[in-house]
Amino acid sequence: MSDAGEVEGVDAAVVAEKVAAAREAVAASDDADAWLSVGRETDVSPEPCFPYLLGFDVVWPTAVVVGPASSTVILGRHDAPTARDLGVHEVRAYDESIADPLREVLDDMGAERVALNFDRDDVVADGLSHGLYLQIREYLPDREFTSASALIRRLRGVKSETEYERIRTAAAETEELLQTATATWTPDTTERAFADFLHERMAERGLDSAWAWDYCPTVHMGDREVGHTLPADHTVDEDELLHVDFGIRRDGYASDIQRLWVRGEASEGLREAFRDVRAAIDAGHGALGPGAVGYEVDAAAREELTSRGWPAFEHAFGHQVGRAAHDGGTLLGPEWDRYGEAPRHEVRPGEVYTMELGVATEWGYVGQEEMVRITETGTEWVVPPQTELRAL
Amino acid sequence: MSDAGEVEGVDAAVVAEKVAAAREAVAASDDADAWLSVGRETDVSPEPCFPYLLGFDVVWPTAVVVGPASSTVILGRHDAPTARDLGVHEVRAYDESIADPLREVLDDMGAERVALNFDRDDVVADGLSHGLYLQIREYLPDREFTSASALIRRLRGVKSETEYERIRTAAAETEELLQTATATWTPDTTERAFADFLHERMAERGLDSAWAWDYCPTVHMGDREVGHTLPADHTVDEDELLHVDFGIRRDGYASDIQRLWVRGEASEGLREAFRDVRAAIDAGHGALGPGAVGYEVDAAAREELTSRGWPAFEHAFGHQVGRAAHDGGTLLGPEWDRYGEAPRHEVRPGEVYTMELGVATEWGYVGQEEMVRITETGTEWVVPPQTELRAL
Repeated sequence: MSDAGEVEGVDAAVVAEKVAAAREAVAASDDADAWLSVGRETDVSPEPCFPYLLGFDVVWPTAVVVGPASSTVILGRHDAPTARDLGVHEVRAYDESIADPLREVLDDMGAERVALNFDRDDVVADGLSHGLYLQIREYLPDREFTSASALIRRLRGVKSETEYERIRTAAAETEELLQTATATWTPDTTERAFADFLHERMAERGLDSAWAWDYCPTVHMGDREVGHTLPADHTVDEDELLHVDFGIRRDGYASDIQRLWVRGEASEGLREAFRDVRAAIDAGHGALGPGAVGYEVDAAAREELTSRGWPAFEHAFGHQVGRAAHDGGTLLGPEWDRYGEAPRHEVRPGEVYTMELGVATEWGYVGQEEMVRITETGTEWVVPPQTELRAL
Repeated sequence: MSDAGEVEGVDAAVVAEKVAAAREAVAASDDADAWLSVGRETDVSPEPCFPYLLGFDVVWPTAVVVGPASSTVILGRHDAPTARDLGVHEVRAYDESIADPLREVLDDMGAERVALNFDRDDVVADGLSHGLYLQIREYLPDREFTSASALIRRLRGVKSETEYERIRTAAAETEELLQTATATWTPDTTERAFADFLHERMAERGLDSAWAWDYCPTVHMGDREVGHTLPADHTVDEDELLHVDFGIRRDGYASDIQRLWVRGEASEGLREAFRDVRAAIDAGHGALGPGAVGYEVDAAAREELTSRGWPAFEHAFGHQVGRAAHDGGTLLGPEWDRYGEAPRHEVRPGEVYTMELGVATEWGYVGQEEMVRITETGTEWVVPPQTELRAL
């Protein structure tokens, strides 16, 4: 392979919607006159904003400059035809160096304050490498640089209609796959066999897993240590639980849900645990809506669970879902150091969140994870929630 | 999915060899007392050094600290068991923040000068995001930071025995796949059908493509525009060429070769073009060996080709092959701005390079790409080169 550009299938429908939203976000920004996203060799080092702003891989250093009223992509001559086919940006092709066209485009926009993709806490808003940052700083010595975090949070978080429809479809197919899998369950079915069955269906349908293939689904049968463990040879004993954490990615968008089944009759203790888990999720759900702050939603669920005598869960109550199962931005989580600023942002209409928690019991892990979309006035379920233990 | 860690299959054989080489490289370094690689959510944002130094994906911020005599990995408690199973590093698990253990580990090593993974030109040496850089700078206010480029160039470039065996096997299987595909060729076979045939064999064998699947193989039949174009409905006419640029990835390591076939009798002009291309590759090959400088090798090939009346090729003569088809580091290329420092380094024993160039003719694209390993005294072919036009 020579080092000329190479391209992949372009998701023009989403790119056009998202670039329009990005221009609006820049126009509304108090901090930045333009938003500059820079990447190169994106098959080795992906720029998490490029799937929204560009939609194809590039080899040479490439800059997407979004202003309040227009946008320009500056890229190597080999990649230029694909950018022209995309038809979303003005296209500037270069042969030798990106420096001159970059300065000219920013000058034409009158952009003094330039937002760049760096963020201490949010990996999807931190796509600028330090080496490229040094290069940009040298090319643009007179500009003021700010973080594009707020722009990216809005761009990724607030889903367009096309994006939401893909997430909804992925979630519905995830439910359908789980129903297909449990319909073939027998008392001899192991965790591994259950996971293999889902993997075979996914391969047949050309579906990706929402996270690492070997761990998606995560399958727990009965009372055993819970975590991101590989499916093993366990089976479900009488009165025990099957717990599955599963998501798929189709057309670039992910789902992420947890579902529970019981073999035989649920004991009173198990029914109580399930009721407590549902109550804690409902408490978080009640606190969730436009304007809610992430850590407050987490606290509502956390306090409900601990007030019922269960230990607190060791993760965030909810995360956003989008191109990734964990899509970054505002987190419904506690103000722990490792979450940085993410739990301190406000929830916005158009964002999609999980709500998830669980407790370990003698019958297995009673874990639940639902998906909701934030509306102008509250929330709506992406797919109907699990409100009862299902029978195997 | 909750936000606890998740892991994938660990390539312990390679990691142990590479970490030992990394310790040696740090011990020999004049610039750094320790080498610090930092990454997080590596399924979203891969750290290109982690497959060598760690071998599994992490979620929380993770630091691999390599000193001259020891190495330590600092990582979230959920990822710690996998690091312990790996058995290569001392393991420090944290719950809240990486800051304190990071300072302690560097103090224990007496490391004042710390190499970080940033580089203006080389994407595989530029895995540190700018946001993480700001965080590290705050956590370690008293250290001196240097670029780890030279360490990374050595680590990735100089292959261990295990690595080289994988590259050699991938290259041999690439040749075998091409022979299988051409054995089924008929005059009606289109570029697309040829590519589909290879993709089906790869899927059966569980092989990845060495670069973007849709463009690997790149197939050119007859006289048409050449580039990183998708296979189309062209066929090979009498006396015309089939040109294929192809590579696979197996066990994490890539191959990258170009091969040529002619339908019917090659005309005198075509034989002449092939001879000139081979002569230019041989000229570059003659200049290649330990101690050669990248741009000098490129110039030898380039001058031979242009002296024979052909236009110069618009890319580098050769690149390294490793985990990626374009594996970064020293480049056998001209001193063009977009290549930065890469062509100015010296070639080292243990590195694996392509040698590639081509010319457009009325019979099709006469392009060749060979793979060589640098030895202590010269070079050796990874797989035998194509020295004659093959008949379809």
